[in-house]
Amino acid sequence: MTNFLDEITWNEDGLLPAVAQDANTGRVLMVAWMNRKALSLTAKEHRAIYWSRSRKKIWRKGEESGHVQQVKEIRLDCDADVIVLQIEQIGGIACHTGRESCFYRVLRDGEWHTVDPVLKNPGDIYS
Amino acid sequence: MTNFLDEITWNEDGLLPAVAQDANTGRVLMVAWMNRKALSLTAKEHRAIYWSRSRKKIWRKGEESGHVQQVKEIRLDCDADVIVLQIEQIGGIACHTGRESCFYRVLRDGEWHTVDPVLKNPGDIYS
Repeated sequence: MTNFLDEITWNEDGLLPAVAQDANTGRVLMVAWMNRKALSLTAKEHRAIYWSRSRKKIWRKGEESGHVQQVKEIRLDCDADVIVLQIEQIGGIACHTGRESCFYRVLRDGEWHTVDPVLKNPGDIYS
Repeated sequence: MTNFLDEITWNEDGLLPAVAQDANTGRVLMVAWMNRKALSLTAKEHRAIYWSRSRKKIWRKGEESGHVQQVKEIRLDCDADVIVLQIEQIGGIACHTGRESCFYRVLRDGEWHTVDPVLKNPGDIYS
């Protein structure tokens, strides 16, 4: 049997982008990256486990904040180089800024406007 | 005034990923890439214009297929390195395989399963 990881077109760094979408509301909460091990663990544990490009290590989303992402479904695109996760966001906050979604800035009249509220102080999330 | 393009963290190739989400259903239809010019044109023309990494040229989505993506909203994430487009997908087909979404494969029992129907023969799309 072919390993599902072998069917993915990993980029030159061995990564692929993962879009995390709220399974209930459909809101796109964040986009992060996975390597082979991260996707393997995500599929096995049914929780989102990314590769942190800045820290260069496996990032078990929620390990510090408690804001774990339970994975309900994993989809792969036609080019096999992006996945979409349907997730349940524990705590309702995906962003390290304390917002529901990382996509809290909207382009209007040529400028980025922050339109979403901070739900929890980042200092309280990572304490 | 700061140009909104200057606030983006472009990757080493001068690109950023753009997630195209159906503004009506919330479905993630595709993820493609934009360079500075592509995002500038997208913002100006209110239709999705990507950078084709394979063809190495500006890709006016729908220029051949007619499956234009009208852009209703553009959002930027906290790291300023991914955008989400709320779009209206003309023709109802985003994928070159003739499916509504590029994310038509689901991971089940360690294998990718195609679960979405082909709505239009690709040969008929690009004729």
